[in-house]
Amino acid sequence: MSLSLADCIHLDAADPAHTDLAAAAECFDPGTPGTLYFDANSIGPMPRSAPQKMQSVLHAGWAQARRRSWNELDWLAQPRALGASIAHLIGAEADDVRVGDSTSVNQYKLLRYALSVAAPRRVIVLERQVFPSNRYVAECIAHDRLADLRFISDISELPAALAPGDVAVVALSHVDYRSSTRLDMAALAPMMEQAGALSLWDLSHSAGAVAVALRACKADLAVGCGYKYLCGGPGAPAFVYVHPRWADAAWPAIGGWMGHADTFAFEPDYRPGQGLDRLLVGTPAALANVAFSAAAEIWRGVDPQAMDSRHRSLTNTLIALFEEQCGDSGLRLSSPRDHAQRGGHVALQFAGAAPLAQALVAHGVVVSSRKPDALRWGVHPLTTTHRQLWQAVQILRDLLQSGAWQDPRFAQASV
Amino acid sequence: MSLSLADCIHLDAADPAHTDLAAAAECFDPGTPGTLYFDANSIGPMPRSAPQKMQSVLHAGWAQARRRSWNELDWLAQPRALGASIAHLIGAEADDVRVGDSTSVNQYKLLRYALSVAAPRRVIVLERQVFPSNRYVAECIAHDRLADLRFISDISELPAALAPGDVAVVALSHVDYRSSTRLDMAALAPMMEQAGALSLWDLSHSAGAVAVALRACKADLAVGCGYKYLCGGPGAPAFVYVHPRWADAAWPAIGGWMGHADTFAFEPDYRPGQGLDRLLVGTPAALANVAFSAAAEIWRGVDPQAMDSRHRSLTNTLIALFEEQCGDSGLRLSSPRDHAQRGGHVALQFAGAAPLAQALVAHGVVVSSRKPDALRWGVHPLTTTHRQLWQAVQILRDLLQSGAWQDPRFAQASV
Repeated sequence: MSLSLADCIHLDAADPAHTDLAAAAECFDPGTPGTLYFDANSIGPMPRSAPQKMQSVLHAGWAQARRRSWNELDWLAQPRALGASIAHLIGAEADDVRVGDSTSVNQYKLLRYALSVAAPRRVIVLERQVFPSNRYVAECIAHDRLADLRFISDISELPAALAPGDVAVVALSHVDYRSSTRLDMAALAPMMEQAGALSLWDLSHSAGAVAVALRACKADLAVGCGYKYLCGGPGAPAFVYVHPRWADAAWPAIGGWMGHADTFAFEPDYRPGQGLDRLLVGTPAALANVAFSAAAEIWRGVDPQAMDSRHRSLTNTLIALFEEQCGDSGLRLSSPRDHAQRGGHVALQFAGAAPLAQALVAHGVVVSSRKPDALRWGVHPLTTTHRQLWQAVQILRDLLQSGAWQDPRFAQASV
Repeated sequence: MSLSLADCIHLDAADPAHTDLAAAAECFDPGTPGTLYFDANSIGPMPRSAPQKMQSVLHAGWAQARRRSWNELDWLAQPRALGASIAHLIGAEADDVRVGDSTSVNQYKLLRYALSVAAPRRVIVLERQVFPSNRYVAECIAHDRLADLRFISDISELPAALAPGDVAVVALSHVDYRSSTRLDMAALAPMMEQAGALSLWDLSHSAGAVAVALRACKADLAVGCGYKYLCGGPGAPAFVYVHPRWADAAWPAIGGWMGHADTFAFEPDYRPGQGLDRLLVGTPAALANVAFSAAAEIWRGVDPQAMDSRHRSLTNTLIALFEEQCGDSGLRLSSPRDHAQRGGHVALQFAGAAPLAQALVAHGVVVSSRKPDALRWGVHPLTTTHRQLWQAVQILRDLLQSGAWQDPRFAQASV
């Protein structure tokens, strides 16, 4: 029995998680009327309050209060306050998280931090298929002879990689950026702990989409993107998480004034800041952080289990619709069927993924492709509706059945 | 013969540089009516176009175009475009400069880059009184045994510090953040070159205030703050400069996807980007860069020599007014008298600098203090007027003569 539009509308209305989250969903701008957004894995939706917050900080903060804003508008407190607002989504305590710098810079900071904590061990274990930027960060560290890299082709090879007892840190994408396969943190983190290696998780495709349990899993370190599901704004600062057992364990590789024990004492010598504060470096990105704060205020009121349930319902429905409506079109599901093994998006495998993505975008369905053949549908737990899923899959089906996606104008390079 | 208010008004009208710059001055928001801002050394003024630009990017970019904005709004091109807009102010060519990350993170990148270029040399020479964050960055690098530090107490000690022939890089504040003393780049950079050491200049207190001649001086590397005189917005991204002879000379310490030779090919292995692009790391801070672009558009039309002349006239006038109006008040000029030896601000030495700064702020004159006894007046070449200088010094004189600055409410800690 296929899902109908009425079924999807019913799911939107009946889903208890949706009811809990309805108030949060109303806090977001719906974007261009008629456009169906499935790009929360790239840039999450904008909170309605962001423009007003930004206007206020531009006029009252930048133009008028100027330097006094550092204190009067709490700009110096932003990295911790923003981190505290999203901590529950990833299973962390408020003081475990800081917002600032880019994901890649944070990946560098935490890899180097792990190498210091675990010295004299100097092996970084990486999946070959980890997000390329994370791999590049590690390769440059190895190029500088600060670590040795050990690649695994599949997570099943991890026990063998850990066996020599020389691993400092294992750097994993919690969710694969192509297939959306989610690793089993609860099973893997203890395995690394037993091997004396730290675990470093990139949560870019899970934070703000599905519930993550860093503390419960005893995960050591994590980074994540601020501008995808977390809705911090285009190019928003990223976050770092450090388990408290390691927060005081070493000096940071990059020691800036915001990571000093007493920033405004202007002491000549470096003293690491208390706990995780030591991983802060330069002046907070105040304007970017104000944009982020619009989302942070929403997240504070979101129950991560309700968010997770809603995301499960949405993505299960999306997969069912794909198979019912387009099952004979050459699309193949490349994401796992079990929600506990998936991250924020649903990925399809299709030989013409790039032009099909272009065609969908031209028809108001904003998806993305990744080489060679992945079509990605980012599902936001707060703003995507089951009804939108139904509408989008109708458009997908029509494009596939008519062959319109093969029009030469859609053959340009994907983005 | 003392300067009068009429003289100052005359200087504003007669100053040829001012005439050239009048159009640029009009592009900035004047801030709170009646407030006299001398904090461009902390947060520069806001371009009037910034709020409209930001509203546009929030609605059309973030809320509506979302992921398509990376290409349609040229967000990926921002780091180079913003750098090109300010390059002439620091004597660089358009391709020599990139905007992104914080000043301290950039200081880390360039110190590490210099150590790679100059290997096996491993000594970093620093002034003891360099801006503390720059010192902290270097100390953490040394703590990780990636360099040895050699401190000099005064720039006159530089030849002796270079003499052993083991110096990789000399990291200098071009302008001292307290006294505003500017080093002689034209004399010092060749000295370092002859000694086989790279020069790394922090331009935070000169870029956008006085003309800098990086290329002409054969300066090797530079960083600078985006949110002070450059008016990029609170916590704006900073910039890096690399002389083209070094742009391809080594791998970066932090190798992110934006510094890869082909970012969106998602190649498994790192290949450094062409030239200076390799020093980019993570996703550009798109919203922060849009704010910065408001200032960048203004800077593109500013002649650095006119800017420099105007700044000289303003700061010379400010010093004359201090001495004429407040010469018997215990204030002492701690900045050099020769403009060629000064940076963006004028510093006074005063035992009660912190409470006096508080009192001035309470009376609408926004200045700052730095421990133990520095009172700093940041002068912006585009927006400060000679008339404002006269008004501010009258308020300073009245506070000193009445002793009102000693009121207990001004005794709180300075910021």
